Amino acid sequence: MTRNEFDLIRDYFARQPVNRRDVALGIGDDCAITEVPDGCQLVVTTDTLVEGTHFLPSAKASDVAHKALASNLSDLAAMGAMPAWCSLALTLPDSDEAWVAGFCQGFSALAEHFQVQLIGGDTTRGPRSITMTLHGHVPKGQALTRSGAKPGDWIYVTGSLGESQAGLAYVLGKPIVDEARANRLINHHYRAQPRVAAGQALRGIASAAIDISDGLYADLTHILQASDVGAQIEVTRLPISERLLAEVDSETAAQKMALMSGEEYELCFTVPEMHRGTLDTALKHSGTKVQRIGQINGHRALELVSQGQPLDWTLTGWDHFKESNCDGS
Amino acid sequence: MTRNEFDLIRDYFARQPVNRRDVALGIGDDCAITEVPDGCQLVVTTDTLVEGTHFLPSAKASDVAHKALASNLSDLAAMGAMPAWCSLALTLPDSDEAWVAGFCQGFSALAEHFQVQLIGGDTTRGPRSITMTLHGHVPKGQALTRSGAKPGDWIYVTGSLGESQAGLAYVLGKPIVDEARANRLINHHYRAQPRVAAGQALRGIASAAIDISDGLYADLTHILQASDVGAQIEVTRLPISERLLAEVDSETAAQKMALMSGEEYELCFTVPEMHRGTLDTALKHSGTKVQRIGQINGHRALELVSQGQPLDWTLTGWDHFKESNCDGS
Repeated sequence: MTRNEFDLIRDYFARQPVNRRDVALGIGDDCAITEVPDGCQLVVTTDTLVEGTHFLPSAKASDVAHKALASNLSDLAAMGAMPAWCSLALTLPDSDEAWVAGFCQGFSALAEHFQVQLIGGDTTRGPRSITMTLHGHVPKGQALTRSGAKPGDWIYVTGSLGESQAGLAYVLGKPIVDEARANRLINHHYRAQPRVAAGQALRGIASAAIDISDGLYADLTHILQASDVGAQIEVTRLPISERLLAEVDSETAAQKMALMSGEEYELCFTVPEMHRGTLDTALKHSGTKVQRIGQINGHRALELVSQGQPLDWTLTGWDHFKESNCDGS
Repeated sequence: MTRNEFDLIRDYFARQPVNRRDVALGIGDDCAITEVPDGCQLVVTTDTLVEGTHFLPSAKASDVAHKALASNLSDLAAMGAMPAWCSLALTLPDSDEAWVAGFCQGFSALAEHFQVQLIGGDTTRGPRSITMTLHGHVPKGQALTRSGAKPGDWIYVTGSLGESQAGLAYVLGKPIVDEARANRLINHHYRAQPRVAAGQALRGIASAAIDISDGLYADLTHILQASDVGAQIEVTRLPISERLLAEVDSETAAQKMALMSGEEYELCFTVPEMHRGTLDTALKHSGTKVQRIGQINGHRALELVSQGQPLDWTLTGWDHFKESNCDGS
C-alpha cells in the first residue's frame, strides 16, 4: 500500500461524526489525550476479529465493523460503564476502498449511536484483522464485575437467546427456506445491539454481571468461578423467541441453543433478593426485557433442571466456525 | 488452538512482574478498571506489528515483544507522558509455547523497567500479529504535541541516529564482516530504548516533540506541518556514532542514513530560545545526550544545509522491508 492509500483510509476515519468534549487531542499526534470525569474510573477492553476465524471473507465490511465495536461495547455494558473513546488497529491486505468505505459506514453508525469517538490507532498491511480497544468510565467503585454473586441471588438474562447461532448457521451455508426469517437471524448474528443502557441501569442493583459472548452456559460458569458459587438454571424459563422455535425441531433443541449460542451480546446478571423490587423500575428507561432463569447456590456447580427435574445434557462452548473461541475478555 | 492452550498463554501473562496500585481490576473480567491520577489527562497510543511487514518470521519472539512495547512507549515519551497500563492483542497461527514464552520474557523485562502493567487484551488464532494499546497520563495541559513549534525555536534530537537502519540491513541478510559491530547494530534495531524519562523532562521546555519512527526527515516534517512552519537542518550537526561511520562509505552516506532511518525511537523536539538554558539541567537526571541540529523558520519547507550550503538531496521515507511504513501514529 502506498502512503497515499493510507492517507485515503485516514481521510475516511477523519470524517467520523462524533466529537466529544472530553477529547483534548484526537487523531493525528503520537498519542490521543482524553479526560476521565472526576470521581470516575477508566474502563478498558480489547477485542480482535480475524478474517477466517471470526468472520468470513464474504462478510460485509459494515457488518464486520458493527460486530467489532458491538463486542467491545458489550464488554463495557457488562461492567455498567459509559462508552467514550475507541482506538482502532486495522490490518488490510490491500487498499480496497469499497471495503474501507463500508467498514467506516458500519463503524460510524454504531459509534454515533453510543457517542464513541475514534481517537487513534494504526493501519498496517497484512492479513485482514481488526483490533479495537474501547475506553469508558464508571463512577468509582460502582463497576459490575463477575465476582459478586452470592447464594440466594437470582439469575437474569436480557433479551432472548439462541438467534446468533441460528443466524450463523445461515452464514455458514444452511439452505434458506423462509428468506425473511433467515435474513432476520443473519442480521441478529452480525448486528446484535449491545446492552449499554441496561448495564448502566444495573449499577447498584446487580451483584455480578457478564456479557454473553461464549454462550450463556460458559459465561455464567465464569461468574460462578469468579464468585466461588454454584447455580441452578430452569431451562423452561430461558427466553426463546418464536423465530428461534420456528428454526428447530423441538423446544429442547431451542433450549440447548439458548445455552450455547455465543456472540449474543445480551447480559447475564445476578440480583440479590433485596434488590428484586427495584429491577423493573431501573430497566424501564432502557426498555430492556429481562427474564429470571435461576438462582445462585453454594454447590460450586452449574445444574440444569427442566420443571425442577435434573437434566444430564452435555454442552460444549461456542465455536467460531468449528474452532475454539479464543476470546480473552 | 484448544481452550487449554489459550489458558497456557494466559498463565504466562498472569505471571507478569508489575502490579500497580492504580489498577482496580486487571486481567480476568470483561474489562479492566484503572484510575487516572487527579489533575492528569489520559494518554493513549496503539501500534500493530505484523509478521512479514514489521518483523521477519525468523525474529526472536523476545525481540518482537520488546519492539512492540518500545514503539508504544516511544509514542508516550513524545507526549511527555508517564506510562501506566497496556492492553495486548496477540494473534497466533498455532500454540508455539516456546514463542509465547519468549514473547512474555521480552515483554515483561521492558514492562517491569517502565512499570507498565498488562491489564487485558485478546488472544486469537490467525496470521501472527501483535497490537498493543498503551495508556499513560500527563499533568493536565502539559503534554508535548507536534503543533507548538514557532519560528526561531531550536531543533534537537536525542541520542544518535542511523543505527536502526544499519541494523536492519544485517537482519535482511547483509554479509557480516565485523560480528561484534553487526550484533550491536542488530540489537540497536530490535532493542531501542524509548526516551521516556527525557520526554517527561521536556515538559515545560520543548514547544513541540515527536518520536522518530518514520525517520528524522519524515517525522520533523510532521512537526512542521502540524505547526505550520519550516526548518533548516545543518547535516554536519546530525548525531552520528563511530559505529555507523564504520558501516558506510562516506560521511554523506551516514548523514542520509541519519535523516532516513526509522524505528530509532529517539525524540526530535523544538525549544524556544528562552528555554535553552534550562534544557541541559532538565535532561541531566535522565542522562540523555541531545544534539542541536537546526532551527525552525517561517518558510514552510524543510531545508537541508551542509556547513551553511544548501543541499539538493532526494530522500524517501522509512520502508519496512521495502514496503511503505503504514504506521498511523
